[in-house]
Amino acid sequence: MLSIDLNCDLGESFGAYKIGMDEAVIPYITSANIACGFHAGDPLVMQRTVAACKTYGVHAGAHPGFPDLMGFGRRNLAASPAEVKAYVTYQLGALSAFCTAAGVPLCHVKPHGALYNMAARDAALARAICEAIAQVDPKLTLLALSGSEMITAAHDVGLPVKSEVFADRGYRADGTLVPRSAPGAMITDEDEAIRRVIRMVREGVVTSVDGVDVPLVADSVCVHGDGEKALAFVRKIRSELLAAGIEVTAF
Amino acid sequence: MLSIDLNCDLGESFGAYKIGMDEAVIPYITSANIACGFHAGDPLVMQRTVAACKTYGVHAGAHPGFPDLMGFGRRNLAASPAEVKAYVTYQLGALSAFCTAAGVPLCHVKPHGALYNMAARDAALARAICEAIAQVDPKLTLLALSGSEMITAAHDVGLPVKSEVFADRGYRADGTLVPRSAPGAMITDEDEAIRRVIRMVREGVVTSVDGVDVPLVADSVCVHGDGEKALAFVRKIRSELLAAGIEVTAF
Amino acid sequence: MLSIDLNCDLGESFGAYKIGMDEAVIPYITSANIACGFHAGDPLVMQRTVAACKTYGVHAGAHPGFPDLMGFGRRNLAASPAEVKAYVTYQLGALSAFCTAAGVPLCHVKPHGALYNMAARDAALARAICEAIAQVDPKLTLLALSGSEMITAAHDVGLPVKSEVFADRGYRADGTLVPRSAPGAMITDEDEAIRRVIRMVREGVVTSVDGVDVPLVADSVCVHGDGEKALAFVRKIRSELLAAGIEVTAF
Amino acid sequence: MLSIDLNCDLGESFGAYKIGMDEAVIPYITSANIACGFHAGDPLVMQRTVAACKTYGVHAGAHPGFPDLMGFGRRNLAASPAEVKAYVTYQLGALSAFCTAAGVPLCHVKPHGALYNMAARDAALARAICEAIAQVDPKLTLLALSGSEMITAAHDVGLPVKSEVFADRGYRADGTLVPRSAPGAMITDEDEAIRRVIRMVREGVVTSVDGVDVPLVADSVCVHGDGEKALAFVRKIRSELLAAGIEVTAF
Repeated sequence: MLSIDLNCDLGESFGAYKIGMDEAVIPYITSANIACGFHAGDPLVMQRTVAACKTYGVHAGAHPGFPDLMGFGRRNLAASPAEVKAYVTYQLGALSAFCTAAGVPLCHVKPHGALYNMAARDAALARAICEAIAQVDPKLTLLALSGSEMITAAHDVGLPVKSEVFADRGYRADGTLVPRSAPGAMITDEDEAIRRVIRMVREGVVTSVDGVDVPLVADSVCVHGDGEKALAFVRKIRSELLAAGIEVTAF
Repeated sequence: MLSIDLNCDLGESFGAYKIGMDEAVIPYITSANIACGFHAGDPLVMQRTVAACKTYGVHAGAHPGFPDLMGFGRRNLAASPAEVKAYVTYQLGALSAFCTAAGVPLCHVKPHGALYNMAARDAALARAICEAIAQVDPKLTLLALSGSEMITAAHDVGLPVKSEVFADRGYRADGTLVPRSAPGAMITDEDEAIRRVIRMVREGVVTSVDGVDVPLVADSVCVHGDGEKALAFVRKIRSELLAAGIEVTAF
Repeated sequence: MLSIDLNCDLGESFGAYKIGMDEAVIPYITSANIACGFHAGDPLVMQRTVAACKTYGVHAGAHPGFPDLMGFGRRNLAASPAEVKAYVTYQLGALSAFCTAAGVPLCHVKPHGALYNMAARDAALARAICEAIAQVDPKLTLLALSGSEMITAAHDVGLPVKSEVFADRGYRADGTLVPRSAPGAMITDEDEAIRRVIRMVREGVVTSVDGVDVPLVADSVCVHGDGEKALAFVRKIRSELLAAGIEVTAF
Repeated sequence: MLSIDLNCDLGESFGAYKIGMDEAVIPYITSANIACGFHAGDPLVMQRTVAACKTYGVHAGAHPGFPDLMGFGRRNLAASPAEVKAYVTYQLGALSAFCTAAGVPLCHVKPHGALYNMAARDAALARAICEAIAQVDPKLTLLALSGSEMITAAHDVGLPVKSEVFADRGYRADGTLVPRSAPGAMITDEDEAIRRVIRMVREGVVTSVDGVDVPLVADSVCVHGDGEKALAFVRKIRSELLAAGIEVTAF
């Protein structure tokens, strides 16, 4: 049976600051990428988010980012591969301790924001991330952009890897995402977005902005829990995937 | 045969900032308390310090502190037991990942600075720290002030525990340290300091500022590597302990 | 004519994190205490908040706190008077630059959270704060708890000072606030809260939890903008003060 | 009479962390660029450094950087012009308050590290920095790389500007610095370095790595105080400039 994982960034609150509707979205997803305190998240939030994963049977993953709380990890930072490797090791370990304490298995790692985007294109950063993960636990799965340098690096390092696709983003003919500043970057029609995901799962292709069919691997689709609209979309995509005979389950 | 561990705080550098003469002191100690990024230390420094422990066969321990880099973790912070528990879990996990990556066993946990001092007197904080450690790995040893609430909490939680003594600090009749602001706080004569430690190991007592013999447990003595004078003292206490027939070895 | 200032903490958002309904509450208040980046706020948020003060003719004030973003500045920190003096100078200067750039006068300083509470009782901290302010600009007004050490220190240093009262907090017979953990800490009935404020303005007294009339000075009352309920209360107290013939105006 | 300013980055210590030999170098320089707490420096350090400027009659300037203490502000960060403008305003204001408190005039602003380098090439960042300065105080002087976008932006905004040259760096034919990774990046011979500076002052040219004479403006030369060797060089360049009939004085 065809299946796909629904992953969502959770645990992005920090101290008195709340971001995301974690409690509302978690029943509908299958994998959680949990912020680890560098770009978002704090120790209490991490502990709480791991507990929520346990309650809902959602797979817990680490979501390491750049040390840039002020920029939410969304700004490119010229960190070296050695720095990135150490940052990922650190954050992975921190989350891992909360998982151990709660009796929740740590399943995967998905880099966040600018780190995710930079490593998708930069083989040395991608390699550094994969080595960090493999040296901590070679059974952890890397979750990364389909067709990116991250996927290649994971194969090279021998790390299990799953490919992520985006329902709401346009793709270029080479399989990369259309930059947010360019036309066609966002798929704003929800029904079209869902049809695209269903086709990705069934046929392993998506239509690029240029009208070309691009092959990709759709192991997991990224959803959001940061507002009522996002939440409604998660419920909708989940039910339409099920209606299309696609199982929604963690990889 | 009588023995004692020599522990030292290492890995306190941060980014471009260097503190301590880690490379110089590490050949003389048996246990390293490695800063975990909250009050000192950063991911690259942690990685490097764990590697140094491997090279020199020194036991690696976590040295978690308050999130107060500006104050080096030396200022009391009114964090709740729940916050402290999460902070210790986080830092312990972060260091643990570097140990795993390097194939170095993580042996112990010694809280830092204000957290150490507050938890020595505050049963709830002490309990929170011990629970954090036990839930991550109940075989880790807590290293804490002899006779303190930390020791009691470790016993209550079932955590292995070793007692730390200070060569250069005065003790009160109740076994607590003379506050730094009070007369008799510091033992400035090095020979006297060493004689006191030898007696702590052999007889399990120290003479208090009031002239009373106070019982204590001397599993480990804290030494420093932050200057030439400190370094010379480490070499001296090590050789005099050996000369006195006391083995210097990790617990 | 009797008058009172309505002050509110604004500009507490940070990066991607939003706290407070600043745009909604600002039309109803007369003084804004703007977070300065230590416990909350960031440079862009400060710039935006100063601009909002200009738009609405609200007096802009600095709201310096402890360097504890994770704890939102609400946790006591054992910082020395010298550290606190430097922290206040720094934050005051940072906000002042945004005021200068926007052509908005900086009017007052109100310490935040744990710093406010600690300095209310600790003469040395209170003095350090007042000296910091006076050395940057002796015409700035300190806004502090009525009857506290802060008021005394401002008088000693020769700093203009205004006294703050709380509508929703119980007072003890000595004029201090009932601690949040004790019975009578919060005045939950809104009408009673407003009646108490009107009496504070008219008569300069409030009834303590013990039923005693306590003298205080009500130059400004603290209101909140962090939710619909808080917002409704601001509108209500404002209209009822006006209905009672009390002008709502910045000091 | 020919003259040049000797500028040096000071106040880069942070909490318990010490960087630089500020007390040793300050008697030999004429302008100090004081870190403002983002990439280095803390409020107590800033206060102390301003006091040292007063003692030695050295011109005090702000040295704003990226919010990246872990990377010492040396890593490129994809901050927007609006973010950079707010960061400079904030840091400038913070330092300004210490200057006001100490009765020391704030004279100039020199961006730090990655911010300096990025703005040297990026007109929008350069403009943002100049606007930030001009809106806080249009009489402040920008100190920036000779021939860079920063100089152009200062002229456009109407900000006083002085051009900085480097004694120990190679120049390309277009007047930019040879990147540190390329051959000829560093001038390692001290006598040659000093001869180059003297020629820059006298003739307004430097020989590029390609052997071409490149015009530049030498208002100030950057020196360092981070070690005995750096310190010896400062004393040497100072005495040789004087011997060559060039006055060493703040701009």
